[in-house]
Amino acid sequence: MDSMLRWESHRERFEEYLHGLRFSQNPALGPLVEAMRYAMLSGGKRVRPTLCMESAWVFGADPELVLPSAAAIELIHTYSLIHDDLPAMDDDDFRRGRPTVHRKYGEAMAILAGDAFFGEALTLITVHQKGTPEQVLEVVRELAASTGVEGMVGGQVLDINFTGAGSEVDTETLYMIHRYKTGALIKSSARIGAILAGASAEEQAAISEYALELGLCFQIVDDVLNATSTAEKLGKSAGSDAERGKATFVSVFGVEGARREADAATERALAALGRIGGDVSGLREMAMFVRHRES
Amino acid sequence: MDSMLRWESHRERFEEYLHGLRFSQNPALGPLVEAMRYAMLSGGKRVRPTLCMESAWVFGADPELVLPSAAAIELIHTYSLIHDDLPAMDDDDFRRGRPTVHRKYGEAMAILAGDAFFGEALTLITVHQKGTPEQVLEVVRELAASTGVEGMVGGQVLDINFTGAGSEVDTETLYMIHRYKTGALIKSSARIGAILAGASAEEQAAISEYALELGLCFQIVDDVLNATSTAEKLGKSAGSDAERGKATFVSVFGVEGARREADAATERALAALGRIGGDVSGLREMAMFVRHRES
Repeated sequence: MDSMLRWESHRERFEEYLHGLRFSQNPALGPLVEAMRYAMLSGGKRVRPTLCMESAWVFGADPELVLPSAAAIELIHTYSLIHDDLPAMDDDDFRRGRPTVHRKYGEAMAILAGDAFFGEALTLITVHQKGTPEQVLEVVRELAASTGVEGMVGGQVLDINFTGAGSEVDTETLYMIHRYKTGALIKSSARIGAILAGASAEEQAAISEYALELGLCFQIVDDVLNATSTAEKLGKSAGSDAERGKATFVSVFGVEGARREADAATERALAALGRIGGDVSGLREMAMFVRHRES
Repeated sequence: MDSMLRWESHRERFEEYLHGLRFSQNPALGPLVEAMRYAMLSGGKRVRPTLCMESAWVFGADPELVLPSAAAIELIHTYSLIHDDLPAMDDDDFRRGRPTVHRKYGEAMAILAGDAFFGEALTLITVHQKGTPEQVLEVVRELAASTGVEGMVGGQVLDINFTGAGSEVDTETLYMIHRYKTGALIKSSARIGAILAGASAEEQAAISEYALELGLCFQIVDDVLNATSTAEKLGKSAGSDAERGKATFVSVFGVEGARREADAATERALAALGRIGGDVSGLREMAMFVRHRES
């Protein structure tokens, strides 16, 4: 199969799997489940779960195998978006062209829908993920590390703390923020696919490095689009970073400089692929897609 | 050792273990770690972790064995308290006699400190908990179930949705709310101790039933204290449930009726202990402590 088609087939299969998640049959819990499904079925790019599936494929496993873990990763990513959008945080009214969860269901429900995703993500892994107990435990360990203090949440704290600092943030700090905030979970997505496919430690390290650079590139492009695109194209506010004085790759390097940083990250990602034996054409295309996306 | 002394020794050992948790050496993450430690080192009753330790002891294990899981449970409980106190939820200014996390560190930090606890809890279990991979995975599965939609978070959603309904909530719904909101995690605390100690399925079921009833009794007594005690004794607002029209055991059964429900739950808890072979004197005392506590 052409690698572009395989990538699209991961995405379709993943959407189908995600649509099938119900969380509870208890009607009293219907409003919570509705808010969660609203948030998770909003047509995101699904970079993380499809990366997890492609990683499994590269190391010889059926992408179908990793669906529970891929969904868990997407649920955790979704919870982070819900919480990041809250009035006390980024205070965003729109996400992917629709009202954010707190705009639609209220703030309390948004906080709780986010919270509930974590437990449900773990249930997906511990009840539905096939593999040896050692492998499944390793998946949980990987997710734990990438979502705690030295992961996604710590990155968000740093991002907020440095908001207002704009161009005064140094390069090292900027990269640290985004290694934690976006890089860690994207790295875990690829690594988890590799773990479940039984890849060697060296292969896991190579695909982790690839994914970390991919994640950084993803964030750099996000910053560039925020500065240069329109709300219509993005489905969310444009120009909001500069208004808030956020520390971004654009505030530190300028638009052209940020584009060069994105190119450099893409090159490092592609170099890491050189250490993997299997068919990495899909991963190469993903790196190009992330670099050149326009929304 | 006298069971009262053993209970106190669990608590002391647990506090010491909790004090040792640092989460990160990265100074940039200091403010997040400070907010987390402020929340978790506030001298709570530690019912859940000590119950986990006592459960392990009853089934023949060294309580020291289960410390990482016991701490994970307490971190998750702490995160739920931080989020419950937020302005969009219960809007509480004080907890255990001190300003709540959002009053002291701001709302964004309170949301994120709560979020970070989940990842850190999982790291404690997956990196530090000894046991077979099957046992450790079972611990994660148990925590996942008790903290998701049909657990702690779903219970909080129901609690909020029924606020204002006061005495119109039926008995069945009221018990459902609290089985989810408080019961599930307390049940898991006992069950996790049993799992790690290698207890049989029957013993796990018996101690789970005991703990679920203990959890319900805990909540009933909470409701009674909220209606009858003072803020000074409780270290948090008194009388706030009635003001908000919350659906509580007092709003449904009245103070005396609620006390009878607490007695009945305690009796069911003690009956479940009858199916356990080991020395359950400590568990019996814990049930009496929960029933008769005054703060």
